[in-house]
Formats: sequence, structure tokens, C-alpha cells
Amino acid sequence: MNQAELKGKIAEAVKNAKSQKPLSPSITNFVTVNFVANAQLATGGSAAMVYMPDEGEFCAAAGNSFYINLGTIIPVYEETIPRTAKKLHELNKPWSLDVPGLGIGELRTKLVQQIKEYKPTIIRGNASEIIGIAKMWNLIAETTYSGGRGVDTADSVDSAKTAAAAIARYTGGAVAVSGPEDLVTDGKTIIRSKGGSHYMEKITGAGCSLGGVCAVYAAVSDPFTAAITATAAYNFAGSKAEKLAEGPASFQTVFLDALYNATPEEISSNPMTVEEL
Amino acid sequence: MNQAELKGKIAEAVKNAKSQKPLSPSITNFVTVNFVANAQLATGGSAAMVYMPDEGEFCAAAGNSFYINLGTIIPVYEETIPRTAKKLHELNKPWSLDVPGLGIGELRTKLVQQIKEYKPTIIRGNASEIIGIAKMWNLIAETTYSGGRGVDTADSVDSAKTAAAAIARYTGGAVAVSGPEDLVTDGKTIIRSKGGSHYMEKITGAGCSLGGVCAVYAAVSDPFTAAITATAAYNFAGSKAEKLAEGPASFQTVFLDALYNATPEEISSNPMTVEEL
Amino acid sequence: MNQAELKGKIAEAVKNAKSQKPLSPSITNFVTVNFVANAQLATGGSAAMVYMPDEGEFCAAAGNSFYINLGTIIPVYEETIPRTAKKLHELNKPWSLDVPGLGIGELRTKLVQQIKEYKPTIIRGNASEIIGIAKMWNLIAETTYSGGRGVDTADSVDSAKTAAAAIARYTGGAVAVSGPEDLVTDGKTIIRSKGGSHYMEKITGAGCSLGGVCAVYAAVSDPFTAAITATAAYNFAGSKAEKLAEGPASFQTVFLDALYNATPEEISSNPMTVEEL
Repeated sequence: MNQAELKGKIAEAVKNAKSQKPLSPSITNFVTVNFVANAQLATGGSAAMVYMPDEGEFCAAAGNSFYINLGTIIPVYEETIPRTAKKLHELNKPWSLDVPGLGIGELRTKLVQQIKEYKPTIIRGNASEIIGIAKMWNLIAETTYSGGRGVDTADSVDSAKTAAAAIARYTGGAVAVSGPEDLVTDGKTIIRSKGGSHYMEKITGAGCSLGGVCAVYAAVSDPFTAAITATAAYNFAGSKAEKLAEGPASFQTVFLDALYNATPEEISSNPMTVEEL
Repeated sequence: MNQAELKGKIAEAVKNAKSQKPLSPSITNFVTVNFVANAQLATGGSAAMVYMPDEGEFCAAAGNSFYINLGTIIPVYEETIPRTAKKLHELNKPWSLDVPGLGIGELRTKLVQQIKEYKPTIIRGNASEIIGIAKMWNLIAETTYSGGRGVDTADSVDSAKTAAAAIARYTGGAVAVSGPEDLVTDGKTIIRSKGGSHYMEKITGAGCSLGGVCAVYAAVSDPFTAAITATAAYNFAGSKAEKLAEGPASFQTVFLDALYNATPEEISSNPMTVEEL
Repeated sequence: MNQAELKGKIAEAVKNAKSQKPLSPSITNFVTVNFVANAQLATGGSAAMVYMPDEGEFCAAAGNSFYINLGTIIPVYEETIPRTAKKLHELNKPWSLDVPGLGIGELRTKLVQQIKEYKPTIIRGNASEIIGIAKMWNLIAETTYSGGRGVDTADSVDSAKTAAAAIARYTGGAVAVSGPEDLVTDGKTIIRSKGGSHYMEKITGAGCSLGGVCAVYAAVSDPFTAAITATAAYNFAGSKAEKLAEGPASFQTVFLDALYNATPEEISSNPMTVEEL
């Protein structure tokens, strides 16, 4: 894939999200749910958050795409998550998955295992989470997982490259690894996206909301383009916001404003490199 | 009703909320719960959010008014919502209802049907939601509901005029329809309130928090005045904030500041028209 | 304890939180969960919010400290709270407790009673909440509790002095009473910390997030120092933010930025007085 072609696809995804206003419902965690919704709205999408099993299925059918984030677990998820993921798979709907806190708790682990067969279109996470999923799904050897710490990563983005590619080849979709330099792959090509801000780690929800925005773009483009577009949008808006922020809270405000105001041209011009695997 | 008299009532409601600091507990959705609480505080009210059945009943009794928002449903609501609504009705407490996501899921639908007999003092929603409630409660014919899309509206404010008036006549309270120009009615008079901002649709919770503020004003005035006051306050603060905002996130900050700083005079002078049905 | 020694301990706690980045997981309410996480991150801590029983236990073991806030109750807490508190006690982990809405509902009351034997390292609350806990735990006579109103206080900070000291002597930890002037005690010494802002009462979560920050500092210092440091940090950042804010929403943004930017020297120099009991 050449960069010029890719830039064109990114610009188109940004434009289409704004004009088509896709509905991207979510089952997402309680900590950052507001940020997720506002980030989806900022990129042109429409948000709707649900928790009940039949509501997950309903929204899987009604939405143009979907976002599942397992950051916080409540008992009803035992039914809600597999039923929703199954429906999304059956309907061939694009959806993104995020697994903050991977490895904490029995139900959380069971849900991630159950999700395997429903092949999320996009999986986003930090390096430890991506390596963790690849291990849990037996897509890579059991040797490299260093283990995250709560919601933080203990691994470098590059160390998750093999895991990310393995997952993408299994799902037939895309995987986005967030870190100082982000990595997005479809199993064949690796895109590295630059920019962002050190403040991203000083606010809660930068990753979750990126997952929600992946779902928005997945409603108007192929999974790989969607993951790259969301990542580039976040890196562009993050770089811009860092210059104006006086701390993490003003960063979040300026970041969301920048995300809203970012043009297709600005997002598609955010620095990236392309590597064929 | 003449405008001068109405203005006086609005100004008094704004003043009384600030001086009496009414307690307006809520059962409200997880996405915008923080915004609801902060908006209630900004207008002088006091907030307390609960989820358990006995806590709903307790707060129905302890509060000066109440707010129920069915934007997100969890299993315990099967008990919490009807018991709380029943208690509010029995105690003749003023309360406001908001039903984002109307039509999604079985329990959500059942709860809206159960609520009918408890006659919410104020119902707030976009046009599709208001038409939807009127249909569900058999207050208008089954022909006009276009159906919303997730939490968005597919109908114009004006198309909900008949539904809003029918609901208000049934409950004996007020109905507020949010849109580019807002409509508030008690079934006899229609108030149209101007102002607000296009950013209102670009942040999550503008509607929910307006519902919460309706409850605050309902604690210190009659339902119709309360709904008009809340709507006017939002339109005034929204217009003011749009001039200062650089995107949706800064809009929300400036909006809440403007809501907090708005004087009785400013809110009661926000442009409106009066039409007798 | 002399002030110079205390200042040294405060400065060290601030510095250590930033350098050691302790993990302080929480079970906290839905209203202010985002603010809690962002405040913890602003002081250098790492956040992870959970709701399930086994996740509470897991995080009690994995974290450097913990925060339990009973502001909102859901059914699963019947298991989650006692199991997590028990585990924290067994492992001798530092943890802070916050009980907004004390007295509302059966389960909430039962949980506070159960928690007694697990002796939270730090308890933070407004005067009514601290007096309420001391009564509920039979640590002071049943005569003085005026009763709060929802999440607000009806008592002055000073009226909670005896209750706070009684609780601290029982737990062997520290108690922080928030109000116009804050009071922190270990049962032997009373520290009064000045500063803060009237806006603190106009935003939701100032108290909850302070409780979360107490947990962060408790991971890197003794409970009494941790509670004093968190209180001083809030008072310093609050005073600074009030000068720049134009309302409660901009206050919250500026406050979090100020909390993030506050130096060990600035926080340890925040005005306080020391009184031996």
C-alpha cells in the first residue's frame, strides 16, 4: 500500500463520518463513558450506550457499527457481551474491542475468551493488552507476556508487533497498538503513526475513546483504514492540544475541540510510516 | 398567560433555586450523570444519584423533587423505577422524566409503560421521544411516529406539538420538547423558547442535564414554569457559550459557567413566544 | 509533631507519588468516577475501577493502596464491598473510605457496619458523614448527629472533631473532615488545613476525588501524612484555581491542572495549624 492512496482513504473516512453521522452504539466502561460518547460525537458519529443483553443485540442490529470496551464488568455482562458479540458477528457488522484491565477477574477473562469466535473487526489496546489477547486466544506462544499492571502497559509497542499481526490475521480485521508511537496492522502491513501527547497518559479514557472512534470510522470505511484514521486523528489532535494545554484537564478540553475541528486534510497528513510484513 | 407575568415567574424560580438550594435526587444514566449533577449544582440545586429500589423510595421522600432518566437500563431498575415513581406519585412530589433511547429493549419499554399511571410532573425529550411516549401511552393515534435513531430525533419539534399537549393534559403537568427552537406546553399554552447552540447536539448530556434542571426548578415553582425556566436558562447559557467556545468540549465548560452565572433577569429575558391552544 | 517535620513528610509524599506512580484501584460511585481517576492520575497515581467481588479482591492484592467510595450502591456490592475490605485488611494494605449519602438505604447502611471491623486506613467525609460513621460504629454517643441532607453536610467541621478523633483512635489510621477549613486527625494530633474554594461545593466530586487522592498518597506514606498531603494539595490547587475560574466548570479544569502542576514545595507550604489533643 502506498502512502498517497492511504492518505486518500483516511481523508475520505473523516469526511464520510462527518456527513453520514453513523450510529456507533457502545457497551463501555463507567469511568470513561462520557469521554467515549463525546469523542464519537466530535468525529461526526452518534453514540448510544447500553448494558442489557437484549439492548446490546438491538443496537448491534440498529447501529452502523459497535464498540465493546471491557474496562469495567458488571454481572449482567455475562449475558450481554456474548449475545451482542454473536449478533455483531452474525450480521457482519464492523465493531471495535478494547480490553482495559485484561487479566483481572474470572468473568472478564471468560468474556475475552468467548469473544474470540466473534472476531472483532478492530482490536485496540496498549502493548500488554494486545500481547495478552494474542496469548489468551493461543495465537502466539506463551513466553513473551510480561503482564500489564492494572490498566497500564508494561510492554513497548514494538514488542506487540507479532501479537498484533497474529490477531489481525486471525480476525481478518485490524489491530491498533497505542503507545508513544502507535502501530496499526491488518496482518500484512504495519502503519506507524506519530504525534499525540504525553498528556494522553495523564487523563483517563484516551485509549477508550480512541476505541470508540475506531468504531465510528469503521462504519464508513474498511477496518484497517478506520483504525489508521482514528489513530491519526488522535495523534493530530493530541499534538495540537499539547501546545495549548496547561495541564491534563485543559488538555482534554482542547483535545476534544481539536478532534472536532480537524479537517480530512489535517488528519490524513499526520506523519506515518508504512512497512510491509 | 401574558409574557410579563411569565417573566416574573421565571425570575422568581431562578432566584428561589439559588436561595433554597432544593435537593433533587436522580436515577439517571451512566453516560451523562456527572453533567446532570453539575448542571443541577450550577442552578443552585443539590444532587444525589441512586440506583437501588429502597434508595429511590427514600430519596423520593427526602428530596424536594426528583429526576428519572431512562437513558441506560440495568437489571435492578425493574424494581427501582416503578417503586420510586409510585412513591413520587403518592407523595405528590414534583419530578421530571427523560427517556433517551425509547424503544430499545424490553425492560425499558415496560418501565415507560408502568410509569404512565404515576404521571410525571414534567416530561422532557426530543420530538421523537415525546411522540413515542404519547403513542406508547395511547394518548395520540398510532400513525405519526417516525421513530428515532438511537438517542437522536427523526422528527421536528413542531411535529411533536400535538403529542406534547396530549401528554401534558393527561399528566396535568408540563412537557418540554427540545430542538432548534424548544417547545414547552401545559396542554393549554405553548411556549416557544429561542436560543441555545448547535454545539448542544455535539456534546452528550445537554438534554439529560436539562431534565435534571427541570427537576430543580420544579422544586421551587409549578411544573409549567419550571420547564420554561429550565429551557430558557439553557437557551440563554447556550447562546452565550457558543460565542466563546472553540469546539464542543470548551462549549460544555463555558456553558456550565454561563448557567451558573446567569441572573434571574437574563434568564427571564431570553426570547420566547406564547401561543394559546 | 512540629510543622517543619510535617512539611518535610508532605513534600516527600508528593514527590514519591510522582516518581513511584502507585496503583490505587477504586470501587467508587458512578457520578464522579471520572474525576476520581483523573485526580489520581494528576497526582502521579495510577487508577483502575472495578465492581465485581473477585476483581475487588484481585485489585486489593495487586494495588499499592485502594479507595472505596459508597456514593452509589448497586446490588453486587453486597458481596464486593465486604470481600474487598476484608482482603485489604488481611493484606494490611492502606486504603481510604468515603461514604457520601450515608444513611440512605438498607444495603448502604449494612455495608458501612460491615466495614467497621476492616478498619479503613483513612476515612474522608464531610462533618455529617464523619459524625454519622462514629455513631454507627458506636464510637461516640448517639446524641449529636444532626443528620446530613443527601450528600450535603448539616454540621460544621469543628462539631466533627470528637467523632473524627474517636474513629482515628479506633482504626489506628487517619480521618479527614472536609469543610471551609479542613480537619485531619490521627486521634492524637489535629491538623487544620486552609485554602480551597467556594467552587468546591458547586462541582460534584471534589470530596470523592480527594478520597481517591488520599489513597494515592497512602501508598507512599503513613496514613496521617497521606490524608494531610491530599488535603493540602486540594487546598493549594483550589485556592489557585479559584483566581482563574469564571464558574464551576472552568474551576474544575483549572483545579485539575493546578493539582497536576503543584510542586512538593507548594503543597507542603499550604497554610495549616497543628493542635495536640
